[in-house]
Amino acid sequence: MGEFELIRHYFAAAPCAQGGEGVALGIGDDGALLDLSPGEQLAISTDTLVAGVHFPESCDPFLLGQRALGVSVSDLAAMGATPIGFTLAITLPNADAAWLQAFASGLDRMAQACAIRLIGGDTTRGPLSLTLSVFGRVPSGMALTRGGAQEGDLLCVGGDLGDAAGALPLVLGQREAPAAIAEPLLARYWAPQPQLALGQALRGNATAALDISDGLLADCGHIATASQVALQIDQARVPLSAALIALAGQEAALHYALAGGDDYLLAFTLPVARLLDMQAAGWPVRVIGRVVAGVGVQLLDADGLEIRPPRSGYQHFGLSSD
Amino acid sequence: MGEFELIRHYFAAAPCAQGGEGVALGIGDDGALLDLSPGEQLAISTDTLVAGVHFPESCDPFLLGQRALGVSVSDLAAMGATPIGFTLAITLPNADAAWLQAFASGLDRMAQACAIRLIGGDTTRGPLSLTLSVFGRVPSGMALTRGGAQEGDLLCVGGDLGDAAGALPLVLGQREAPAAIAEPLLARYWAPQPQLALGQALRGNATAALDISDGLLADCGHIATASQVALQIDQARVPLSAALIALAGQEAALHYALAGGDDYLLAFTLPVARLLDMQAAGWPVRVIGRVVAGVGVQLLDADGLEIRPPRSGYQHFGLSSD
Repeated sequence: MGEFELIRHYFAAAPCAQGGEGVALGIGDDGALLDLSPGEQLAISTDTLVAGVHFPESCDPFLLGQRALGVSVSDLAAMGATPIGFTLAITLPNADAAWLQAFASGLDRMAQACAIRLIGGDTTRGPLSLTLSVFGRVPSGMALTRGGAQEGDLLCVGGDLGDAAGALPLVLGQREAPAAIAEPLLARYWAPQPQLALGQALRGNATAALDISDGLLADCGHIATASQVALQIDQARVPLSAALIALAGQEAALHYALAGGDDYLLAFTLPVARLLDMQAAGWPVRVIGRVVAGVGVQLLDADGLEIRPPRSGYQHFGLSSD
Repeated sequence: MGEFELIRHYFAAAPCAQGGEGVALGIGDDGALLDLSPGEQLAISTDTLVAGVHFPESCDPFLLGQRALGVSVSDLAAMGATPIGFTLAITLPNADAAWLQAFASGLDRMAQACAIRLIGGDTTRGPLSLTLSVFGRVPSGMALTRGGAQEGDLLCVGGDLGDAAGALPLVLGQREAPAAIAEPLLARYWAPQPQLALGQALRGNATAALDISDGLLADCGHIATASQVALQIDQARVPLSAALIALAGQEAALHYALAGGDDYLLAFTLPVARLLDMQAAGWPVRVIGRVVAGVGVQLLDADGLEIRPPRSGYQHFGLSSD
């Protein structure tokens, strides 16, 4: 048995590769088999992470495994789907047992948190990269898309923005900070928590939704385009964490929140009545603006005047936004 | 819009990315949505192809697109599934319009032949590699697996073996041959035709099945292990094409068929009664051996005596079997 064949057996034996609701056949055959219940659709999303582009080549493998799966599952949250399984296609320059064990542990940790199972994939030799496809179930016709925002809806997000982008200098070792500041920010970068429960609660309530990966302004642009509306963001309403402000100051923190990325929190549009229902039920819904007629995204100051936005689009890990 | 954003729009506009039965939502949102009919399961398979490992870096992009999808869809054939859609995660060192157009044309050609739609994926910058996930439907409980071969079943394959492995010296420009010999062999390498109709016809008939990617001996070993039986192969029954024999001679042709790979034809086990039904219906079923008690794979000569098999496992493109 070759070393890469051994890796395949290693992943097949991982706790997150065992059983799972909806998984009729897992790793080890020509493919996997999933079951859906009548009246359900299957949601599918695929993400690739390349060493040196999306993460530092030398990064901690446990954190990488945890983050890679969290980033991917966040797309299921954005669709309002319930996770079933994922495939992992991993390309590695060599088979390093300690690295793989740590990577698989991180993957397992996030799989546990998201109740998702490893159902297949591929292991190949080459420059380090990961492609994960995630699969979830959603009641037919109820998936959240980017295309339904209506004039008069409120624009909302699921929590404080900019923390992961603000953590990047810490991740890269370019800065240091006291643990009370660094730890919560690093956790937002390395252990993104897909807002699965919120996404499911938004089904039938939100008119449009996505997860913020490219930065608030860029991703709101995606909703605006798909919905053929304009989105107004009140700059003063953009939620910022105390840790990010302590690290970067108010101005830079706002910049990270608007033009950074890697938040993996939901942005969505809600009719006013639905907002009240969601807030009454205790969901973490932060209103940051509204849907109006027009095109594109407008950033407004406290007087409702348009501000020139910072250059949008996140330069992942400083190399490119691809 | 960045150049990689343009590539995404380019794939989204490809003919194979439009519509499709069972595709409720295609490219352009956080994920795709698939519909299954009641009583169906979803079959999923993932393959990664890395430049310099699985294909020459400088190979024709049309042929690469065609081959990459054919190789992946072959796993659906092996499960007896009907294709619905696929995702393409492509990592590219740069955005070369002519290369991409040719690649997408090859992909489109194979997608047309397999009636499968491009439903999503990812485009990233980095060393050239492709990860395709394919999705198909199969009646619940009817998918072909590797695990059901029974003593007394016959071992069969879906056509001539070894052509693609034998074509490799032609692919790499290490050999030349007259067109009448080279063309059919190169076609078997660059345009593998997934045996979808055969796979579907085998549902309820075959007791085990897979597609031959690692070489006949290695892949029969997978059936033997999963089914906890032994497989006997009569060497004289292994089907070889006239073109392969003309190129390589009888002995090397047999070696390619046994220990080569990249055939992407089905190998399967059939009860005798089912074999007669399949042959009567005109399916291309070639009997090459039988299932017996025991473990592993035995290669037999014309007198039924065991022959020491050639070293099995295909060294893809001469670098590794991963």
